[in-house]
Amino acid sequence: MNRVADSAARAVVLLSGGLDSATALAWARREGFATYALSVDYGQRHHSELQAAARVARAQAAREHRIMRVDLAGIGGSALTDWSMALPEHSQAGIPVSYVPARNTMLLALALGWAEVLGATDLVVGVNAVDWSGYPDCRAEFIRGFEALAALATKAGVEGARFKVHAPLIAMSKAQIIQSGLQWGVDYAMTVSCYRADSDGRACGRCDSCRLRRQGFNAAGLEDPTRYV
Amino acid sequence: MNRVADSAARAVVLLSGGLDSATALAWARREGFATYALSVDYGQRHHSELQAAARVARAQAAREHRIMRVDLAGIGGSALTDWSMALPEHSQAGIPVSYVPARNTMLLALALGWAEVLGATDLVVGVNAVDWSGYPDCRAEFIRGFEALAALATKAGVEGARFKVHAPLIAMSKAQIIQSGLQWGVDYAMTVSCYRADSDGRACGRCDSCRLRRQGFNAAGLEDPTRYV
Repeated sequence: MNRVADSAARAVVLLSGGLDSATALAWARREGFATYALSVDYGQRHHSELQAAARVARAQAAREHRIMRVDLAGIGGSALTDWSMALPEHSQAGIPVSYVPARNTMLLALALGWAEVLGATDLVVGVNAVDWSGYPDCRAEFIRGFEALAALATKAGVEGARFKVHAPLIAMSKAQIIQSGLQWGVDYAMTVSCYRADSDGRACGRCDSCRLRRQGFNAAGLEDPTRYV
Repeated sequence: MNRVADSAARAVVLLSGGLDSATALAWARREGFATYALSVDYGQRHHSELQAAARVARAQAAREHRIMRVDLAGIGGSALTDWSMALPEHSQAGIPVSYVPARNTMLLALALGWAEVLGATDLVVGVNAVDWSGYPDCRAEFIRGFEALAALATKAGVEGARFKVHAPLIAMSKAQIIQSGLQWGVDYAMTVSCYRADSDGRACGRCDSCRLRRQGFNAAGLEDPTRYV
């Protein structure tokens, strides 16, 4: 059921299937965008997360949901198979070792390509600078930088269109994200945040992502609907 | 045989297997970089082009050659399967219909990710603003814009590294590219430019890319080593 008018502006929303991106999608719907949800599978997590993305896209009445696969492994296996694992030797204080080089640049580039095909100039991404403060590509400066690049990189930009990258969660705590998402109709039981979710999408309850998520529900004073193993 | 010193600065070079990128790789080698060649297969051309890329990488003594696959088709087929085909209805004077939305942004994002893993801050791309003057992401403004984004997007950039995107061919004619490449040791018989190359990498001789290439050899007063069907 899609109640968005045919004439609504289109937005491409990056949707991982986790808590933050589900909330970002709900934000875009509430803003009146006709939403086009894009999940990029670069081998990062369990297939259950992509299934969660599909459920969330349906529940939030996305016009379309696409999954693109990016095989970072190359031929013969490599550091690119798992960029984060290649990093510890270069890691510095302040930036988590789970940082994936240029990840959000790649994700936004793919979103930008689809946006241009759709005639859209709005991109939506659920990045958050509070919980992940060490990630360079989760900062407002990066978001503004990508907007500037999009204006230079595209036919639409050259013709005068102004691309906007919306990052509505960027300054929110996890508790604020959850409180907002519930107001906007997100069913968090559908989302999968766990780095080690099982094939049914049940969370381990112990990894960093589970911990942050659980703390968010606690801080918001809300019951955690996450299905744990 | 790689005569580049172990201490040489590393550069990630985008290598399609065509004439321009082979020349860009040779330029990087001549500049003294230890080269890491990256081919991105987004379903754009015949497999023979990727084989050409592998041959060129070997001949130019690249330290490594990686091929990344990006499946733009998503689930169920879409305009993304062939972005260029989705565009004619939006096309405007001055920008060729063969323009692929956000292509160079995506390619450079993947190169940037590998560069960060390698500890490299130099990227090399064979874009050219003369033959393809209508492409927004082949212009110097775009290249400078990507450098600015890379500084914001990466751990290295935040820590003060200055990323450089080298586009040594950007202002050259096809004839100048060929003349330079021959000086730098490129064997153009290895490269495949044709949009419809057969499985042996033999060119059709009639498509736009073949036409530009042939004109380049003619203008340079050089014999065309291209293998035609």
